[in-house]
Amino acid sequence: MTAKSDLEIARAADCRPIAEIAAKLDIPFENLVPFGHDKAKVSLDYAASLKDRPDGKLVLVTAINPTPAGEGKTTTTVGLGDALNRIGKRTTICLREPSLGPCFGMKGGAAGGGYAQVVPMEDINLHFTGDFHAITTAHNLLAAMVDNHLHWGNALGIDPRRIVWRRVMDMNDRALRDIAIGLGGTANGVVRESGFDITVASEIMAIFCLAEDLADLERRLGEIVVAYRTDDTPVTARDLKADGAMAVLLRQALAPNLVQTLENNPALVHGGPFANIAHGCNSMVATKTALKLADYVVTEAGFGADLGAEKFFDIKCRKGGLKPDAAVVVATIRALKMHGGVGREALGQEDAEAVSRGCANLARHVENVKKGFGVPVVVAVNRFSADTQAEFEAVKTACATMEVEAVLCEHWAKGSAGTEALAHAVVGLVEAGTADFQPIYPDAMPLLDKIRAVAQKVYRADDVVADKRVRDQLAAFEAAGYGDLPVCMAKTQYSFSTDPAARGAPTGFRIPVREVRLSAGAGFVVALTGEIMTMPGLPSHPAAEKIGISREGWIDGLF
Amino acid sequence: MTAKSDLEIARAADCRPIAEIAAKLDIPFENLVPFGHDKAKVSLDYAASLKDRPDGKLVLVTAINPTPAGEGKTTTTVGLGDALNRIGKRTTICLREPSLGPCFGMKGGAAGGGYAQVVPMEDINLHFTGDFHAITTAHNLLAAMVDNHLHWGNALGIDPRRIVWRRVMDMNDRALRDIAIGLGGTANGVVRESGFDITVASEIMAIFCLAEDLADLERRLGEIVVAYRTDDTPVTARDLKADGAMAVLLRQALAPNLVQTLENNPALVHGGPFANIAHGCNSMVATKTALKLADYVVTEAGFGADLGAEKFFDIKCRKGGLKPDAAVVVATIRALKMHGGVGREALGQEDAEAVSRGCANLARHVENVKKGFGVPVVVAVNRFSADTQAEFEAVKTACATMEVEAVLCEHWAKGSAGTEALAHAVVGLVEAGTADFQPIYPDAMPLLDKIRAVAQKVYRADDVVADKRVRDQLAAFEAAGYGDLPVCMAKTQYSFSTDPAARGAPTGFRIPVREVRLSAGAGFVVALTGEIMTMPGLPSHPAAEKIGISREGWIDGLF
Repeated sequence: MTAKSDLEIARAADCRPIAEIAAKLDIPFENLVPFGHDKAKVSLDYAASLKDRPDGKLVLVTAINPTPAGEGKTTTTVGLGDALNRIGKRTTICLREPSLGPCFGMKGGAAGGGYAQVVPMEDINLHFTGDFHAITTAHNLLAAMVDNHLHWGNALGIDPRRIVWRRVMDMNDRALRDIAIGLGGTANGVVRESGFDITVASEIMAIFCLAEDLADLERRLGEIVVAYRTDDTPVTARDLKADGAMAVLLRQALAPNLVQTLENNPALVHGGPFANIAHGCNSMVATKTALKLADYVVTEAGFGADLGAEKFFDIKCRKGGLKPDAAVVVATIRALKMHGGVGREALGQEDAEAVSRGCANLARHVENVKKGFGVPVVVAVNRFSADTQAEFEAVKTACATMEVEAVLCEHWAKGSAGTEALAHAVVGLVEAGTADFQPIYPDAMPLLDKIRAVAQKVYRADDVVADKRVRDQLAAFEAAGYGDLPVCMAKTQYSFSTDPAARGAPTGFRIPVREVRLSAGAGFVVALTGEIMTMPGLPSHPAAEKIGISREGWIDGLF
Repeated sequence: MTAKSDLEIARAADCRPIAEIAAKLDIPFENLVPFGHDKAKVSLDYAASLKDRPDGKLVLVTAINPTPAGEGKTTTTVGLGDALNRIGKRTTICLREPSLGPCFGMKGGAAGGGYAQVVPMEDINLHFTGDFHAITTAHNLLAAMVDNHLHWGNALGIDPRRIVWRRVMDMNDRALRDIAIGLGGTANGVVRESGFDITVASEIMAIFCLAEDLADLERRLGEIVVAYRTDDTPVTARDLKADGAMAVLLRQALAPNLVQTLENNPALVHGGPFANIAHGCNSMVATKTALKLADYVVTEAGFGADLGAEKFFDIKCRKGGLKPDAAVVVATIRALKMHGGVGREALGQEDAEAVSRGCANLARHVENVKKGFGVPVVVAVNRFSADTQAEFEAVKTACATMEVEAVLCEHWAKGSAGTEALAHAVVGLVEAGTADFQPIYPDAMPLLDKIRAVAQKVYRADDVVADKRVRDQLAAFEAAGYGDLPVCMAKTQYSFSTDPAARGAPTGFRIPVREVRLSAGAGFVVALTGEIMTMPGLPSHPAAEKIGISREGWIDGLF
């Protein structure tokens, strides 16, 4: 174990000029749009020019249900990518861009950790290449055009009480969750209630991450439903003639961002939708570009496999025609102990039995990915210093029962040297060619049945519960031609059930569907199973209070 | 006259790689932070390393009071810069960055016109290098921290009714002018009234444009007064510990942006504060960096010389220790006709007498700059195709009386070939060395007397009118230690008086001061003499409706 902090390691990184990183993928410099000397966008024209090349192998990194003990999905993705490069496979990783707002709240930055990081981490966590700003602007332009339309006579007949398009800001700002706008007299428009979400919750973020190219992006932007009339018919962004201007605002952003790992391997970091009300994966453009450029592409999905992997498979892979070749399910001994009933305070004590019990959570995810989706699995145990051999043996024993390999990973402390075994295991799985991916439900199934399929086959719930209002709404979506869309489940990330405290592998529960929402541009129907916070707040002492520029010109306090 | 549109000309531009443009100023490539291949930031470290070099000559481009007929300050700045380069003077122009919001409203983009443009015009008008997004984010982080402080117990004792820090968005969105925030229950903070301004109206924009360097920026950010307590004492951004994080958000943005003119000459385009509630000039960092890099620096100030030049001199030059060497006052025959009483519909008819009458407006500006501020002047007549020789002779005659040269300029149609005479005239003025710049009032004068000095010496008002509330507020600012600050006049741009319809050179009027506001971070006291709109709205058919991406991949409708 190293004594250096993530920040010290990142600052000591030997960052290579981005043209050198691009050269590893044979991308000519003129096809890069540089942002400084260590970041670049890969031009969309160049990405499009690759379309006849064969695809590389696609590997998903997912995880058990998160606990306060931590899992390390991003570090494992970085470590696996570096290790695949180390053993001679031309590999690119694909990650989500972090949101700026939360950096100033509780959590600080997010770009891996230890010796498994992407750099420049400070830039990636701040403005990066401006993608989120572009999404924020496009979103708010549409909002301004909705209110402007009301102000100038409402020719489209929008019901001002049924405007579903809010505004966004990449900031944790609870005071903007619920607001009244248009106050102060007739010159200021029509008074109504509205609010702000954080930018990652914007439907435009989801659209951005599912669009195949600029034309598809513009088409999807036009499909966005912003409001309803009193006769229940939808009003779209296209009706407001906002789609073209939004596409113009997003044109540059849609090109994927190339950065590097600490080991100077290529990383595409692009897009970052929520993993609850959206699908939680990096952009389709980045993943597809990476598949054309590399032999192996390692990507991650948000939260645990019940949410992240399920959406990666049922939404992103289905829509994009992607065929994943293997999956890595990440666990930590500490987190398995928590799933086995140990409290946070006792995580430091050896408890192989609790680990064995906690493997019930791991086993369910593994089975879902392997059997439910047909994607072969290897389990990565992300090592912490206090883990014991007996505890790891407990995981190995459990994995043997699941007929998957468990590999100890030390990328945090050792970089790719600590993930070489995982890389070999992944290559073995991929080369065995056993993957036979299929989504968990077909396009043609009624929407409520799709929700039920996920609940029963993935979560192992007894059933779903939906009152008449929800069923009527789903029927209305189907009547309006949206019945073929996949569903996007908004559920707590902490449990298979909707009870965040139910760790392990709970049974005997039902999934209540409280509300359903149409994301017509993104192309899915969101099923909300609990309160989902789409605008976080700041803590009593936000991280921002300690962030500043040091005398040496470094950024202090961000990590 | 060319038949090509601005857009066609810009698209046909032979844009050189930005490293070539930087090489013209001997900036090594490693000191650039590239944004694509045609834009770059000049690193702050490099800018600081130039501090012992002698300064180049500083030339301000200002104008008569604007009319609907147009003046062409930006095109003249570009044309003059190109012509100075053409006659062998190493010259850089310094311009403001355009605001993104208005592009989608009425006006389209702004980056010069005809053969006097800066490119890439589409990028410059959209996200450019993200400076405005950074300013928006820093502003809104502070706002979130204010409301967060209230939510968590208000230890600083802020009076929630006296929070003066609003939020900003780079968008025309009238529905956000007046809003109620914190609705929806205790989890969402404290209910209060607030609103959004457009980003260019942010005090952070003014700070950004007056800061000498990053340390000065951070210090000024800390000085921002966000609210008052019930005992009238101010609460600052520093009290909230927001200054460091804001500086981190602005760190990259503060480096000036290098682009090029159509003739491949360097242009620094950086910062863009309002010219009414703020001082309306590009950043201090850009101007000072340009002065170290070039023999001549040509810059412009917002609105007419009564507002723009006065603030450039009394705020920017005073604070930055700048010594302008010459000024260009731009006029058009058409606009002078309007100042001479001709209506918009009759502008096409020759009327030399009206031009002569309208020169009263020009004469007052010229006298102010020459005698009031001690800066020698040349008048640039920006030619339109319908102008006649008799009309131009009328201007020449008037200028002879003012003892200044009037030069006909055709940069719009001919580029630098059309401004060579102006360049020679400017060099003549500069080399004569007659400049003896001084501000119009000293630092030590009471604030109301400073307002009066501007009103009487620049506007030629009989007096100022301020009621007890305003006078008490000014006294309070002085008691709190802000008495040495300059004043920033917020007045209509269309007239020397506060009546926008009073063209020409009105007399016999007084300047009512309705309200005064402290911009402690920017370092000035704003005196509002009328309703100033700080959040524009969109027109009934916003430009956004016609903006889109063409089949060829061009952006349509932006210009």
